[in-house]
Amino acid sequence: MAACIFCKIIKGDIPAFKLFESDKVLAFLDIQPLSYGHALVIPKHHGAKITDIPDDTLSEILPVIKKVASATGAENYNVLQNNGRLAHQVVDHVHFHMIPKPNEAEGLGIGWPAKQADMEKLKQLFETIKAKV
Amino acid sequence: MAACIFCKIIKGDIPAFKLFESDKVLAFLDIQPLSYGHALVIPKHHGAKITDIPDDTLSEILPVIKKVASATGAENYNVLQNNGRLAHQVVDHVHFHMIPKPNEAEGLGIGWPAKQADMEKLKQLFETIKAKV
Ligand SMILES: [Zn+2]
Ligand SMILES: [Zn+2]
Repeated sequence: MAACIFCKIIKGDIPAFKLFESDKVLAFLDIQPLSYGHALVIPKHHGAKITDIPDDTLSEILPVIKKVASATGAENYNVLQNNGRLAHQVVDHVHFHMIPKPNEAEGLGIGWPAKQADMEKLKQLFETIKAKV
Repeated sequence: MAACIFCKIIKGDIPAFKLFESDKVLAFLDIQPLSYGHALVIPKHHGAKITDIPDDTLSEILPVIKKVASATGAENYNVLQNNGRLAHQVVDHVHFHMIPKPNEAEGLGIGWPAKQADMEKLKQLFETIKAKV
């Protein structure tokens, strides 16, 4: 897409610190990092959400994240991919964050408002989703 | 691993709401959900961090996450995978959370302590990581 900043990085119209590139995937450093080594791994196929990306492209992404995580030497790190505004997505081209977590202050902050599920409701939900998978 | 709760779920020694299963990957509902439809997608290969999982298994995970996300019908959702205690990992068997984000109160909470990077330092970091990829 012409207006997409990540498509421009892929095309080389905007410079980036490119760590790895294949036919289908690109990895580069985030320039507003949450921590030392924060990188982005993106499909070259433009699409806003993970459901918009073909499987044969999706399948190449995690091995690249693994490669980049190894290269940073991070012991603790989060892999995060956001879909939709409510879910904190800012750029509408699928991107996976690989964010080292060296200490409490740096890296991704996580809020975890878990509840114990009502097992009967969970079972109903399960039947509903399972029928659509 | 004998003591691993996710390996027990894979073997069927502990019950779970299994949404999808292949030779290498299993998807099931989280029973302490952050939101309606919160699911886990795991490799059947036991390993604590993404760097411990073979590429041919990693490559099958995102297509399954896509399938499960589609089935829940969520418009907004986060995909999160944590590596290490500091990064919020609790069970030491790689697992990807697919967490619908229906509203501000439910789903994943995200803290984003971004800083504008010192470009000179980022360039040095880039050279260091790039040499290891
Ligand atoms: Zn794009
Ligand atoms: Zn295990």
